[in-house]
Amino acid sequence: MRVTAPLLPPFASDNYAPAHPDVLAAVTAANEGYAVAYGEDPVTARLDARVREVFGPGASAFPVINGTGANVVSLTALSPRWGGVVVSDVAHVNTDENGAPERVGGLKLLPCPSVDGRITPDDVARWAGQRHDVHRAHPAVLSLTQSTELGTVYPLDDLRALTHVAHDLGMAVHVDGSRLANAAAALGCSLRALTTDLGVDVVSLGAAKNGGMLGEAVVVLGPDDGPDGGAGPARESAAAAIPYLRKATMQLASKARFVSAQLLALLGEPGAAVAGTGDDAPLWWRNAAHANAMAARLRDGVLASAGTAPGGGTGVRVTRPVEANAVFATLPRAAADRLRERARFYDWAAGETPDRVEVRWMCAWDTRPETVDAFVSAAVDALG
Amino acid sequence: MRVTAPLLPPFASDNYAPAHPDVLAAVTAANEGYAVAYGEDPVTARLDARVREVFGPGASAFPVINGTGANVVSLTALSPRWGGVVVSDVAHVNTDENGAPERVGGLKLLPCPSVDGRITPDDVARWAGQRHDVHRAHPAVLSLTQSTELGTVYPLDDLRALTHVAHDLGMAVHVDGSRLANAAAALGCSLRALTTDLGVDVVSLGAAKNGGMLGEAVVVLGPDDGPDGGAGPARESAAAAIPYLRKATMQLASKARFVSAQLLALLGEPGAAVAGTGDDAPLWWRNAAHANAMAARLRDGVLASAGTAPGGGTGVRVTRPVEANAVFATLPRAAADRLRERARFYDWAAGETPDRVEVRWMCAWDTRPETVDAFVSAAVDALG
Amino acid sequence: MRVTAPLLPPFASDNYAPAHPDVLAAVTAANEGYAVAYGEDPVTARLDARVREVFGPGASAFPVINGTGANVVSLTALSPRWGGVVVSDVAHVNTDENGAPERVGGLKLLPCPSVDGRITPDDVARWAGQRHDVHRAHPAVLSLTQSTELGTVYPLDDLRALTHVAHDLGMAVHVDGSRLANAAAALGCSLRALTTDLGVDVVSLGAAKNGGMLGEAVVVLGPDDGPDGGAGPARESAAAAIPYLRKATMQLASKARFVSAQLLALLGEPGAAVAGTGDDAPLWWRNAAHANAMAARLRDGVLASAGTAPGGGTGVRVTRPVEANAVFATLPRAAADRLRERARFYDWAAGETPDRVEVRWMCAWDTRPETVDAFVSAAVDALG
Amino acid sequence: MRVTAPLLPPFASDNYAPAHPDVLAAVTAANEGYAVAYGEDPVTARLDARVREVFGPGASAFPVINGTGANVVSLTALSPRWGGVVVSDVAHVNTDENGAPERVGGLKLLPCPSVDGRITPDDVARWAGQRHDVHRAHPAVLSLTQSTELGTVYPLDDLRALTHVAHDLGMAVHVDGSRLANAAAALGCSLRALTTDLGVDVVSLGAAKNGGMLGEAVVVLGPDDGPDGGAGPARESAAAAIPYLRKATMQLASKARFVSAQLLALLGEPGAAVAGTGDDAPLWWRNAAHANAMAARLRDGVLASAGTAPGGGTGVRVTRPVEANAVFATLPRAAADRLRERARFYDWAAGETPDRVEVRWMCAWDTRPETVDAFVSAAVDALG
Repeated sequence: MRVTAPLLPPFASDNYAPAHPDVLAAVTAANEGYAVAYGEDPVTARLDARVREVFGPGASAFPVINGTGANVVSLTALSPRWGGVVVSDVAHVNTDENGAPERVGGLKLLPCPSVDGRITPDDVARWAGQRHDVHRAHPAVLSLTQSTELGTVYPLDDLRALTHVAHDLGMAVHVDGSRLANAAAALGCSLRALTTDLGVDVVSLGAAKNGGMLGEAVVVLGPDDGPDGGAGPARESAAAAIPYLRKATMQLASKARFVSAQLLALLGEPGAAVAGTGDDAPLWWRNAAHANAMAARLRDGVLASAGTAPGGGTGVRVTRPVEANAVFATLPRAAADRLRERARFYDWAAGETPDRVEVRWMCAWDTRPETVDAFVSAAVDALG
Repeated sequence: MRVTAPLLPPFASDNYAPAHPDVLAAVTAANEGYAVAYGEDPVTARLDARVREVFGPGASAFPVINGTGANVVSLTALSPRWGGVVVSDVAHVNTDENGAPERVGGLKLLPCPSVDGRITPDDVARWAGQRHDVHRAHPAVLSLTQSTELGTVYPLDDLRALTHVAHDLGMAVHVDGSRLANAAAALGCSLRALTTDLGVDVVSLGAAKNGGMLGEAVVVLGPDDGPDGGAGPARESAAAAIPYLRKATMQLASKARFVSAQLLALLGEPGAAVAGTGDDAPLWWRNAAHANAMAARLRDGVLASAGTAPGGGTGVRVTRPVEANAVFATLPRAAADRLRERARFYDWAAGETPDRVEVRWMCAWDTRPETVDAFVSAAVDALG
Repeated sequence: MRVTAPLLPPFASDNYAPAHPDVLAAVTAANEGYAVAYGEDPVTARLDARVREVFGPGASAFPVINGTGANVVSLTALSPRWGGVVVSDVAHVNTDENGAPERVGGLKLLPCPSVDGRITPDDVARWAGQRHDVHRAHPAVLSLTQSTELGTVYPLDDLRALTHVAHDLGMAVHVDGSRLANAAAALGCSLRALTTDLGVDVVSLGAAKNGGMLGEAVVVLGPDDGPDGGAGPARESAAAAIPYLRKATMQLASKARFVSAQLLALLGEPGAAVAGTGDDAPLWWRNAAHANAMAARLRDGVLASAGTAPGGGTGVRVTRPVEANAVFATLPRAAADRLRERARFYDWAAGETPDRVEVRWMCAWDTRPETVDAFVSAAVDALG
Repeated sequence: MRVTAPLLPPFASDNYAPAHPDVLAAVTAANEGYAVAYGEDPVTARLDARVREVFGPGASAFPVINGTGANVVSLTALSPRWGGVVVSDVAHVNTDENGAPERVGGLKLLPCPSVDGRITPDDVARWAGQRHDVHRAHPAVLSLTQSTELGTVYPLDDLRALTHVAHDLGMAVHVDGSRLANAAAALGCSLRALTTDLGVDVVSLGAAKNGGMLGEAVVVLGPDDGPDGGAGPARESAAAAIPYLRKATMQLASKARFVSAQLLALLGEPGAAVAGTGDDAPLWWRNAAHANAMAARLRDGVLASAGTAPGGGTGVRVTRPVEANAVFATLPRAAADRLRERARFYDWAAGETPDRVEVRWMCAWDTRPETVDAFVSAAVDALG
């Protein structure tokens, strides 16, 4: 990844953004006097109450420290020692966590080929044969990323069908929601409609990529929250296990109030509206909807200004449906390198031909429209 | 642990304290614009520079997320897959981390009986026989806690002797420094004098217990920092391994700048004095010295007002040398319970007789002298 | 361990002995034609039937490959991912398995100080406080070695009391029975009287040290076998887990019939007497009783010929009650080294004074009386 | 897998076969008197000497207990804690070991799509990008199965090219040789020509599938054995690590002589010819060549008698090149089920159409020509 001093803010990662001022304010407010450590504090109690409002009356919130931790705690809590986790081949948990699920949780990942980051019920069903075979990892969990690593979003019906097939095969369903807010904003639905109501059992609820600072949460749905998919016992045992697993896997913050405060700032305090689409919407929605809009603006700008280049040539080609806060595109390597002198971003994959490359342009809660427009202009220059 | 609504601030844990305002200010200052994620940011670069000033020109700093993480990353980086870690039987890493070293690192802990939390060179030497025995865990690391879990401090000469015997036996030396600042303040020495100069190889450098918010650091000394103990190769391989281990054990923060900012606030920015004992001293020193002073004030107050009760009776007995920020004492259970109605604290162990109990009273950077005095009065009342 | 060419057969380890001819004959008989692999063969079915006769109608047998494997499979099957195992500090699983429970099972061992290898109900009860404490390993299993690593045997009443306290505290009870046969022979009881009838939940059933060749077994008692200790669910879940754990921890033999055949040779075929003390007794009993008798002969011979030397001096002192097939004794280092020129054995620990050493002399199923007598003579010579 | 009482010996697995009489004789011969335990015995010393003759003067042999153990010990010895292992997607280590590499070794497997069980240098090179990326498993080892799980054999030139690209990318090369003998017999070359001379670093040397009873070996090549691929340091560190890893992963037999004796029976005693193709050839060669010949006879018989049915229809279609001891074929499900009433075998995968299935027919050292012919007749009947 060649990087030179950029003149524009980067389009490299939503992790490059600062925390939202409201998140910082919440951390500052939480810094008053003493509080019992390790999650027995009133801020965490408020978070727990809020999570029940947002996700369902039986839901439990477990603040953890980072996204990999949220995923590994979730998956380990849902899996026996001989379990396997069905995932997309491009799932973050499969490709970008340096094997933490395997190394910390002893889990076996069972990857499925994906299209634009999404897998299908048939992909899941293909693992059915190795249930209860002592020679093979028992497929215990289906883990879905929403929005996906390729900037796409599973429609609600697709998620419902995936959850259904997983439950039918005795698997629990986990959602890696490091960008769950972006998916909800894209679909115009509540977090609950995107998880609980579809039968999802456990959620890694992201914060850092959507205006948070340090920390995420695992949310376990209650046995009676959402449709009865038969995974109630798995939810109960996961909720009972996580306090221990979280500590043993080094994901319990001593001063947990500071993590909880960030999540509360994003989700809203107890009693506030759980959803909405305007300025009164919770911060999670506003941040995510803005980032999504910036990605759409970037896609539109690039397409309008630079034209498309299906399958090669000298132009830019948007390669994945832009449904959340990422734009994937191919362009000539030379143009990508020239553009990178103006703003940092990452290469993602090979392009259609050896002289082309697929790049990822991420937008964040703080990406400004004028920055997008300047970047589009720079892209036109680089391609010219 | 019976706890009732306290009227006084608690003496339960230095983790109950808020972050120091300067730490919060540093976090706020770090929240400006974008920064490359995962530790490639300028705040972390400044921390690295500062750590070299404080610990030695070859030192490397690796921000991590919590104390258990700092310990497990350190120990795993110093140990082969068949390694063992010599520790005190009361070491936090042995008793209070829910087996994280075993579960995440696959490490075998080799506990030594301790006196007031301290072990001796003879305790270490006792494990020599199982080096290079395939049936036994190879003693690869000596891990020392400074200050100890019982509020005592290893004198410099003791640490030097321990380091010496460990190196002689081919072990690397790790210091669990979740309260390293308290030890340095107690001994009136710099952090370097307490680690590098004695031959320590890797340090878990605490922040949360001394005014931090979320995050700690692993510091690996350079091969040529400090006396030549022969552990240079172990240091080099640890420094090379930690970036990978930190990620794979879920201790890498995406927005690492916020961890680094806290550590910088405590250690001071590059160029500032690395030690000192007055108002110009670095924040780490001021916070720790204050907490230590409050513990001494509490001990003195209790001893003066309540008298001693050696081995039993109705009075209070201070059971461990008060050298850092903790007071351990025995008193009648009934009195402890009455006192707990005024301020929260934890039982630690059984007392001299069944009707007595050993308790732990912790002071923190924010403990006020008048709170200590009020607590002493409450203790006198409870004992009366 | 200095070893020179011995003239006498060794007293170093019961693992040095060959397989008993009947075990070899059983292996040879099992080598007829094909058999379904991985334990679905008729020899293993016979073993399962036999184990039900010997241990209880609900018992299940799981052949594994070695003793460390039997222990780790057993303990892992009885423990959640955050579990701890209460053991004697000298337990083989704690000292001589190179941390396999920690490294393979992620288990935390919770060692108790022992006397002559035995621990007490009070030792177990001491761990009660850390149940359900997220910061500490949950004491999930009590693991007892019978006969112990120091050649002693828990009396039935002691075992019953230990099992009782463990069950009261919600722990399952595992017996490391690598020398269970020696204990049963010493106590003159059946294997069932020593395990099932006392409330033991899972047994590592040894073979190699008692005339076997390669392989051991895990025996899980049925929920209704033995007294109701409340551990029925733990037994059921262990029996369901072990087929998967055994494979995932590399303890499943492809040609399992050859392991099962050895165990059958020792336990007797279905229908044969399960106990007995004469020539008609099962092979496990005859082998173990003989080895025990040889240890007693060795102790008696040494004591008669060499005299005792309480606490030092020039003589030999038997240091542990000789209750199974081991003799522990101290003698002058120089004498031990002279004796070692006649027959191999291992040093065990330091002696009463620096010039004395504690040694271990093990007898096996094939130790001959005349070898014992010659060794006693050699000891007298060496001490002279 | 529906199985009914077979009338013919099975074609299900080469693990169903008994041990070869010479192997049993060697075990019997090893059962003479005492021997030092845990591999310090003279039989194991002879094995070590023989392995040096067979594989190279710097080679080391480490007897282990089963094939999964051989693989996990090998791979763990070659990989840092953050390592990944490049494998074929159908590799036994990826699909049939219930995640033992992940669960015991904490390894991340990096699967490549394969054709007939084989992968290419390009597949390996595709992982190059994630070297030294802290977010991704470092590709540390290339593990190749020879002969493959689909009954094919890598030609020597292919293996050489694969080894070359792996070494170029800093990976060590492991061969899962549970059927290495079948590959060598198929290629008409020595074991050394198939491993050492191509630059292979570590071999899991199978025995059970080729006439053994219980046990396999890990062979580590010496730094100077074979062409200089730069992996010398990896070999040295692996050879130093394995004694510890073997114990800690429960793969060390106490009475190791019985494992070594089996391997010696197959490889031949020191001084015997290391290769050859007639009756004087070592047992490993004779067993494997026979099994291969039986598979070829089965393929030829089926093709001649039943005709081919490319892509569907009512006939049988051989689906993979028959190069070792396995025949893979598709046929109508109904015919497969009828045939299974005559001889046990396993389904492998879906067929070309829903009413067809791919089956696996394995031959072993003891498969008789007349059994093959009878099976072919039965197949014709079933298909008729």
